[in-house]
Amino acid sequence: MNNKDVHDKGLAIRREVLGAAYVDAALKGADDFNRPFQEFITEYCWGAVWGRPGLPKKTRSMLNLAMLTALAKPQELKIHIKGALTNGCTKDEIMEVLLQTAVYCGVPAAVDAFRTAREAFKEAGA
Amino acid sequence: MNNKDVHDKGLAIRREVLGAAYVDAALKGADDFNRPFQEFITEYCWGAVWGRPGLPKKTRSMLNLAMLTALAKPQELKIHIKGALTNGCTKDEIMEVLLQTAVYCGVPAAVDAFRTAREAFKEAGA
Amino acid sequence: MNNKDVHDKGLAIRREVLGAAYVDAALKGADDFNRPFQEFITEYCWGAVWGRPGLPKKTRSMLNLAMLTALAKPQELKIHIKGALTNGCTKDEIMEVLLQTAVYCGVPAAVDAFRTAREAFKEAGA
Amino acid sequence: MNNKDVHDKGLAIRREVLGAAYVDAALKGADDFNRPFQEFITEYCWGAVWGRPGLPKKTRSMLNLAMLTALAKPQELKIHIKGALTNGCTKDEIMEVLLQTAVYCGVPAAVDAFRTAREAFKEAGA
Amino acid sequence: MNNKDVHDKGLAIRREVLGAAYVDAALKGADDFNRPFQEFITEYCWGAVWGRPGLPKKTRSMLNLAMLTALAKPQELKIHIKGALTNGCTKDEIMEVLLQTAVYCGVPAAVDAFRTAREAFKEAGA
Amino acid sequence: MNNKDVHDKGLAIRREVLGAAYVDAALKGADDFNRPFQEFITEYCWGAVWGRPGLPKKTRSMLNLAMLTALAKPQELKIHIKGALTNGCTKDEIMEVLLQTAVYCGVPAAVDAFRTAREAFKEAGA
Repeated sequence: MNNKDVHDKGLAIRREVLGAAYVDAALKGADDFNRPFQEFITEYCWGAVWGRPGLPKKTRSMLNLAMLTALAKPQELKIHIKGALTNGCTKDEIMEVLLQTAVYCGVPAAVDAFRTAREAFKEAGA
Repeated sequence: MNNKDVHDKGLAIRREVLGAAYVDAALKGADDFNRPFQEFITEYCWGAVWGRPGLPKKTRSMLNLAMLTALAKPQELKIHIKGALTNGCTKDEIMEVLLQTAVYCGVPAAVDAFRTAREAFKEAGA
Repeated sequence: MNNKDVHDKGLAIRREVLGAAYVDAALKGADDFNRPFQEFITEYCWGAVWGRPGLPKKTRSMLNLAMLTALAKPQELKIHIKGALTNGCTKDEIMEVLLQTAVYCGVPAAVDAFRTAREAFKEAGA
Repeated sequence: MNNKDVHDKGLAIRREVLGAAYVDAALKGADDFNRPFQEFITEYCWGAVWGRPGLPKKTRSMLNLAMLTALAKPQELKIHIKGALTNGCTKDEIMEVLLQTAVYCGVPAAVDAFRTAREAFKEAGA
Repeated sequence: MNNKDVHDKGLAIRREVLGAAYVDAALKGADDFNRPFQEFITEYCWGAVWGRPGLPKKTRSMLNLAMLTALAKPQELKIHIKGALTNGCTKDEIMEVLLQTAVYCGVPAAVDAFRTAREAFKEAGA
Repeated sequence: MNNKDVHDKGLAIRREVLGAAYVDAALKGADDFNRPFQEFITEYCWGAVWGRPGLPKKTRSMLNLAMLTALAKPQELKIHIKGALTNGCTKDEIMEVLLQTAVYCGVPAAVDAFRTAREAFKEAGA
């Protein structure tokens, strides 16, 4: 941890977006091998970037759905689709984002993302 | 061309976002080899997706900046950074999008995107 | 749906290549969230591209195996390996395509593709 | 060089597909740093894969255009578009391959590939 | 097989790094469809590259962890994490490699890699 | 800047690895648009990761060459090839890294990397 304030702000945002239960389990399950990484992403990703006031969290969620589809990261995509719902995205808006990925990232990337989204909605009871 | 209405709506949006001069030059420069592709993207990309009312154009622009950075497509990124300015994104908002790509797509992708953005701003007089 | 003729031609090709049972199940399982996407790919991917007469379907199948390996999309790859068999590719030709991906996309991409192909052959009884 | 016969077969195919002048210049320009790599690709890529009889060279060329577009390798793509012409692909067939990449690899990948193809045709006087 | 000596050297290294039981099962399970590929990677990957004396095997393992994370190949990554332990990498060194991937390949790639590493350690009893 | 100590350590390493003249020019050329990003990478990339004692700088350089080849980032690759020379890599070791990328990332990625390396050596007078 390099900066306790940034880390703590990041932890609060991470718990707010991804759910306290999920994040607390991830941190509690950390061991010596991945604890430095968990602290790194809490501070670097959630504190230093998500903690910036320049964009609404809902917009940051939509950007993540687009990037995680482009990068083919289904497990992270599922987590962030639930986070997008938490941050105020509607299912229709998520559909629009994924339709747009079909054109720019290719149809197979979007096929995978639509499948992941259906699983995420089911798990989230949305 | 499969549907003249969708194509024409797409052409109008494409000219509005990317600039009439740029689009008209692209279409005028088309030959038998790439004309079917030009018509395809006008209809498929700009008509059938950008033409949907479900997201503001400004949001679609931000999604594109994130995807084009993830996909490492600097020439298209430059065009869409100018389009983002046209669609109402501020330079600060573009900076926020690119900072977020650094975390999700990796620092080298963001280094390239920041360089491209500076070139785009210069060309656009922004 | 933007053009009923293109959509219907696409639907016929999609059912022919991927199998009527598979496609009908996908369409029947669609809900408000992914129905627009299902229609989109039927019309634009299967109608507007696969429906073009410029290449034999067997060639289009081989191109897809190469691209889906390069893009690391195993679920779509499996579906299209079965489609390639339907379109007249032999197992030996599929092997040749995948050997070529090893050189251009890297050995790990080809390892995944060979594994997927064995699963596809098993499911298809090939 | 591990097998002189495979290497020599590879060299003959490489010169036939990419042009003797181009290949001879590449080999003549090699130094201690990249000579092992030049020998490696001559033997393994051109001898051990392209040298297999299981697919026509024209088909291998089309597969390469699809993969090199998916992998975003414009310089190699240009070389292999010229090679595709040498191997008997028509400009119309190349257009069909690139249209198909638009759907599977995304529109920006195809935009880059169409631009590269136009440069390749110009350089090849096609 | 193009060169028996290179193939045999490759086979010895492959068995040493990935474990004799694993490799022998892969080769025994090969059929006409993937046997040429198995021979190809034994000779080309393990003989002609891993067999070069220019880098210690431990370094080659670390390079592979970085590349397989960048390329998003979790199954191969798991195999090579076990191979890295065999080649003398400590868990702390593997952690350092994966932390570095977070910055260059993006956080989601590293999240996947840390998850894979924990599975690999468990399977290897490390 | 979240932690001055980490930032300052990062700045020292960045200047040491990439060259003081290059880094100072980058920082001096920064404006309001990319200054937050420059500070971000100095602190998180160079301070929080490169500043960790767990791997020698020479090893971190080799990992970067492998990742930047896999990610197709030629401009960053060129900078880090020069940095690798500074960190004690020989040209022969760099050749070994790039040969290994040919197998795992594919031959076209390695072709690009070898070309970039030759440019980097020339610029560095190596």
